[in-house]
Amino acid sequence: QGILERLDAGEIVIGDGGFVFALEKRGYVKAGPWTPEATVEHPEAVRQLHREFLRAGSNVLQTFTFYASEDKLENRGNYVAEKISCHKVNEAACDIAREVANEGDALVAGGVSQTPSYLSCKDKTEVKAAFQKQLEVFMKKNVDFLIAEYFEHVEEAVWAVEVLKESGKPVAATMCIGPEGDMHGVSPGQCAVQLVKAGASIVGVNCHFDPETCVETVRLMKEGLEAAKLKAHLMCQPLAFHTPDCGKQGFIDLPEFPFGLEPRIATRWDIQKYARKAYDVGIRFIGGCCGFEPYHIRAIAEELAPERGFLPEASEKHGNWGDSLSMHTKPWVRARARKEYWENLKPASGRPYCPCMSKPDGWGVTKGAKELMQQKEATTEQQLKELFQKKK
Amino acid sequence: QGILERLDAGEIVIGDGGFVFALEKRGYVKAGPWTPEATVEHPEAVRQLHREFLRAGSNVLQTFTFYASEDKLENRGNYVAEKISCHKVNEAACDIAREVANEGDALVAGGVSQTPSYLSCKDKTEVKAAFQKQLEVFMKKNVDFLIAEYFEHVEEAVWAVEVLKESGKPVAATMCIGPEGDMHGVSPGQCAVQLVKAGASIVGVNCHFDPETCVETVRLMKEGLEAAKLKAHLMCQPLAFHTPDCGKQGFIDLPEFPFGLEPRIATRWDIQKYARKAYDVGIRFIGGCCGFEPYHIRAIAEELAPERGFLPEASEKHGNWGDSLSMHTKPWVRARARKEYWENLKPASGRPYCPCMSKPDGWGVTKGAKELMQQKEATTEQQLKELFQKKK
Amino acid sequence: QGILERLDAGEIVIGDGGFVFALEKRGYVKAGPWTPEATVEHPEAVRQLHREFLRAGSNVLQTFTFYASEDKLENRGNYVAEKISCHKVNEAACDIAREVANEGDALVAGGVSQTPSYLSCKDKTEVKAAFQKQLEVFMKKNVDFLIAEYFEHVEEAVWAVEVLKESGKPVAATMCIGPEGDMHGVSPGQCAVQLVKAGASIVGVNCHFDPETCVETVRLMKEGLEAAKLKAHLMCQPLAFHTPDCGKQGFIDLPEFPFGLEPRIATRWDIQKYARKAYDVGIRFIGGCCGFEPYHIRAIAEELAPERGFLPEASEKHGNWGDSLSMHTKPWVRARARKEYWENLKPASGRPYCPCMSKPDGWGVTKGAKELMQQKEATTEQQLKELFQKKK
Amino acid sequence: QGILERLDAGEIVIGDGGFVFALEKRGYVKAGPWTPEATVEHPEAVRQLHREFLRAGSNVLQTFTFYASEDKLENRGNYVAEKISCHKVNEAACDIAREVANEGDALVAGGVSQTPSYLSCKDKTEVKAAFQKQLEVFMKKNVDFLIAEYFEHVEEAVWAVEVLKESGKPVAATMCIGPEGDMHGVSPGQCAVQLVKAGASIVGVNCHFDPETCVETVRLMKEGLEAAKLKAHLMCQPLAFHTPDCGKQGFIDLPEFPFGLEPRIATRWDIQKYARKAYDVGIRFIGGCCGFEPYHIRAIAEELAPERGFLPEASEKHGNWGDSLSMHTKPWVRARARKEYWENLKPASGRPYCPCMSKPDGWGVTKGAKELMQQKEATTEQQLKELFQKKK
Repeated sequence: QGILERLDAGEIVIGDGGFVFALEKRGYVKAGPWTPEATVEHPEAVRQLHREFLRAGSNVLQTFTFYASEDKLENRGNYVAEKISCHKVNEAACDIAREVANEGDALVAGGVSQTPSYLSCKDKTEVKAAFQKQLEVFMKKNVDFLIAEYFEHVEEAVWAVEVLKESGKPVAATMCIGPEGDMHGVSPGQCAVQLVKAGASIVGVNCHFDPETCVETVRLMKEGLEAAKLKAHLMCQPLAFHTPDCGKQGFIDLPEFPFGLEPRIATRWDIQKYARKAYDVGIRFIGGCCGFEPYHIRAIAEELAPERGFLPEASEKHGNWGDSLSMHTKPWVRARARKEYWENLKPASGRPYCPCMSKPDGWGVTKGAKELMQQKEATTEQQLKELFQKKK
Repeated sequence: QGILERLDAGEIVIGDGGFVFALEKRGYVKAGPWTPEATVEHPEAVRQLHREFLRAGSNVLQTFTFYASEDKLENRGNYVAEKISCHKVNEAACDIAREVANEGDALVAGGVSQTPSYLSCKDKTEVKAAFQKQLEVFMKKNVDFLIAEYFEHVEEAVWAVEVLKESGKPVAATMCIGPEGDMHGVSPGQCAVQLVKAGASIVGVNCHFDPETCVETVRLMKEGLEAAKLKAHLMCQPLAFHTPDCGKQGFIDLPEFPFGLEPRIATRWDIQKYARKAYDVGIRFIGGCCGFEPYHIRAIAEELAPERGFLPEASEKHGNWGDSLSMHTKPWVRARARKEYWENLKPASGRPYCPCMSKPDGWGVTKGAKELMQQKEATTEQQLKELFQKKK
Repeated sequence: QGILERLDAGEIVIGDGGFVFALEKRGYVKAGPWTPEATVEHPEAVRQLHREFLRAGSNVLQTFTFYASEDKLENRGNYVAEKISCHKVNEAACDIAREVANEGDALVAGGVSQTPSYLSCKDKTEVKAAFQKQLEVFMKKNVDFLIAEYFEHVEEAVWAVEVLKESGKPVAATMCIGPEGDMHGVSPGQCAVQLVKAGASIVGVNCHFDPETCVETVRLMKEGLEAAKLKAHLMCQPLAFHTPDCGKQGFIDLPEFPFGLEPRIATRWDIQKYARKAYDVGIRFIGGCCGFEPYHIRAIAEELAPERGFLPEASEKHGNWGDSLSMHTKPWVRARARKEYWENLKPASGRPYCPCMSKPDGWGVTKGAKELMQQKEATTEQQLKELFQKKK
Repeated sequence: QGILERLDAGEIVIGDGGFVFALEKRGYVKAGPWTPEATVEHPEAVRQLHREFLRAGSNVLQTFTFYASEDKLENRGNYVAEKISCHKVNEAACDIAREVANEGDALVAGGVSQTPSYLSCKDKTEVKAAFQKQLEVFMKKNVDFLIAEYFEHVEEAVWAVEVLKESGKPVAATMCIGPEGDMHGVSPGQCAVQLVKAGASIVGVNCHFDPETCVETVRLMKEGLEAAKLKAHLMCQPLAFHTPDCGKQGFIDLPEFPFGLEPRIATRWDIQKYARKAYDVGIRFIGGCCGFEPYHIRAIAEELAPERGFLPEASEKHGNWGDSLSMHTKPWVRARARKEYWENLKPASGRPYCPCMSKPDGWGVTKGAKELMQQKEATTEQQLKELFQKKK
């Protein structure tokens, strides 16, 4: 059954987690470029991660083609050991995803994401050509549907949807925005409307913000669609990092990005709360992005098991809300084998010299304004010193 | 070259990371029992993790035989899908480790750990029999050396070393203790002395505490050995969790164990500091335990690359102190591509409702004492109320 | 010179700090009732606090008549040792304030605040009568101007202004609201417009929120007045507590109110930042409310000394940005004698088991909704347990 | 009844709080010099603070003669508006304390503290002369007993006790040390032994550390005395700041000292816990030092009211464990009118960008060692960069 048949029938579809962050930690992706040449260089590592997500409950395996457009791979090409063609990377990604999907009940989704071409102001034709090139591989490899994801500007996302739509396959589109909307100030509601008008059957957000913020953003999208009397399925693939202190551009501006995010990693219980919230808001395609490891995806599948009527394979190695601890030798550890315990735990960071929140970079005053302020302040300081001198 | 040749020559030997925690997150190990039946059930997952550690720089691949003694597997047997024999689990573990070790320059170490038999007060013969059974597999599979690890009582550790020593292979022994010593109050220095006298050529600690605490504990072991005029190589495989708030029994008593430890996860920079400190103290076998992912092991290998003269394979996907960020489009992210930035960053948890430290469970007053205190307090409260009433 | 002459001439007028909180800590006011019978019971304590604020730089001494309306005193009367008449409390407050004002260059302001009568839905006539009664004392004692402060509802504040206005004396009016507006949802801008139309010459906010939030609220008031083409002087008297986590009703709903607010107390440097921000927004009547001690008021006077051209008396016991430390014996303490140090210090709480933020009470779901949710959740839990049972 | 009669009879004696910090905030003492010229310049302010402590329950009023030795006043003399003689400051302090003591049931204690003469290595005769000068005033003014307090070196404390002892009046002696002992490494137990042998009838600690640390230090003193078979009454006057992160020299080395300590201020409930703990350890002279405001002293008196059988005057303005909130209009605030609430509250700081703990200044490596380390590190860094270059 295809993605739309499932969603139309009211099924919950579980997405997968974040490949670039997981594979960076495993040693196969370089932070900074974040490109997916591992599909060619180390297919076994990509295959294993797909498999873990499948076992955890994913119904959709996304091809590991993030930032795999030709312009991106060239742009970051100096990082790739030997020049690997865009074509090869995308083909390998499709083959691996399909191989693992066949081991279970999962669909393969070909994915495209924002391009350096758009950011460097190339025109519509050129940007669309980049998507077209990836789409050709997806069509040849016959993926089940297509996802345009990780777009900061709805204009580029619309172009991507327009390209993908021509294939005749169902198209999902997610933006990496928060409640404040896209980088040009288009609100989540308006973004959703434009994407659906462009042909997307599923819309939502991915990456850049924590689960709570993402669910709220999708809720705003839903409101926008309802106001415009449009219909679409809703999708959410947030970070597995807590980001209450983000600005408009999300976690990239946090000082911890990307090598100090550990204390922000969500627990499985945080993710169960997310899954429930997403479901309650009406989202039915529920997955994750950067930071989501297989056990986070399993947490979605377990939280929604009552609605779905079944547990994922990987639950054979997991208990309901910690109940595998009930056999522990220490009575105080056994006492943790219950929902209320984990639900209410406020986990400590073990980092007494660290704060709880950070101020995002990149949103300060302009240099000119700063100089003016410092100048003014210096004058004030001088005057104050003189006053204190006089007083004595 | 064997482990002792390497260490005798002054080489730095890098250990591997924690299998049970990593595979739990990947969906192959059940928290609570923590048993390694995955070697039989899902060899590809175990193999892939070994491979990632190898790429990250591990010179030693430990067989995934933690808690694989017969008594343990039986004890927790009801969790294993189908009964898998102790023998089979240990054999498969050896085969997988050897297969991956042959892909690079690594030794295979067969590992035994503390037994339920000892904890339930079985006698020396019975406990030793459990180790003997695992040793037989290790000998048949011809591992390169042996590790007795994760012992809370030096008495049991000594028994393990005695059994392993008979094989003629080099023996390493690590205890899961902190500076306060073992559960019977034997100091780290005394533990080290007993283990070396029993035949261990390498001694140290693993698990239960964070890197800083573990290095300090090994330093105390070193002092003990020096005082006793004994010689041995030193080894350290700590948690990759911050645990400044632990009691004597380590992280198991922390309220976050085992499903809420995320905010405590060490960054790669924390691990670089650990590697340097361990080296400065004189430790030459440096690895990790629970929480250590491949990128943490890589951090050890990178920190000590100047001393060793080479980088691990996985460094092809990593920059020196974040320098892969130097090409980022945003100037304030590019500004993070330097050592001082990451070295001094105090990462925020993004959890404003959570504390920094927890009080460990399990160390409170006895129930009788508590009741007495409450009774006394109630009397005081009553008297105080009456005084306030009178005053009005 | 009167208050309006000063403000019209562009002068900065510095208010005083919070009497109820300061005198509670000194042992003269009871938390809960918060009534000012100390003016009669312990005039020396009230006099001394006025004097400290005067020395710190206050240009306005508010009579300690907070919650001194007849209905309030009766309502809380059981707390007052012997029944002290409303009249006596207000008269004594005026006498003490005038006595101290005469020791320096300060005005005396008679103050009224919100009444229990309004909250229990008494009609306009009755509520106004309460204000009228206090006003009679203020007229007899010939205070310099009048302040209607601490109103949660603009409707009652308008009634107060109408009563006070009849006296012919200048009237200031401040509400205890944040950016979300009054308890009936009237925006700060609209509140300001109504107060000015009712006759207030000075409008602003006091209490309930931290300096940053209060300055922002007054800024919104200013915008409202500009949009309505009305003119008035602006005034701000915030808490000296950090309250980033407050809801609409302010710090009263924080779990720490009123006996655990210590970790939230502002430093003198926090207050210097506030004074500068308030000044930059165009506020010229700058003071404080609960939590403001004399040294906080001095911080305002010192920050704005360059604009005013003089320092307050109490600065003879204070250095500019910590420069009194420059003679300390320890070099690392001497290194703290500079602005950048104190400006950038992120002070630690010394409370490792406490969080940074709290969730305010009183904003949860209704009891009915809660029960429904629990019921639904219990069902889900039951289903999940059965699924896990089946799986095994 | 004298101090020793009271203590010998088993009475609890409550001390007073900290004058220099309280009067600094009120505008009468300068941080840095910390000298008590306010006794002459502003006697009304000193009198009022004494009165507040008396009302709060203090049984002992210490003359405000901290740092009032002649050498200190000269040393810091440039801060004093007009040169005020040491003699005058000490006399005024005695007069004010006696005046207020006569208003209730309190003793007057004349106090001396460590001298600049000792710190600059003057000899015994010269140091003792400084104490002698102050003692002459105390004898003339006939104080009830004497306290030698705030000594970092037991040697100087012993000299002070020897001088004071000659007067024939009872002598108490407290040091500003923690469990690690005095600045020359003398343990708390040894300090206590020396002080008692020199003639002190009461020994203990004051200042520099938080209540918990101080009680522990006095407990160690008690152990030392018991081991030496000596008898003395025990006394404790800690900070009202949380200082879990202090080094050996106490809170002066904390980066927040002295102008950013606000988040560390103890709540009244923290102080109730302290009073109980101190009592349980056997301490019977229980007071406070820097940071202790009148309401903190009242908390001691209220906690120990059941043992003493009465409440202090200021309790007429306070309820038992917050019960004055029981009449509040909001139900969720009424719910705070109980002991369990305040006892278990973990108060938030409202400072999400601040840490929980600080690293004390002044304990780093020497400059030479630092340079060596940086040099070594730079070499390592260079080597690492080259390795990464080569790898590419």
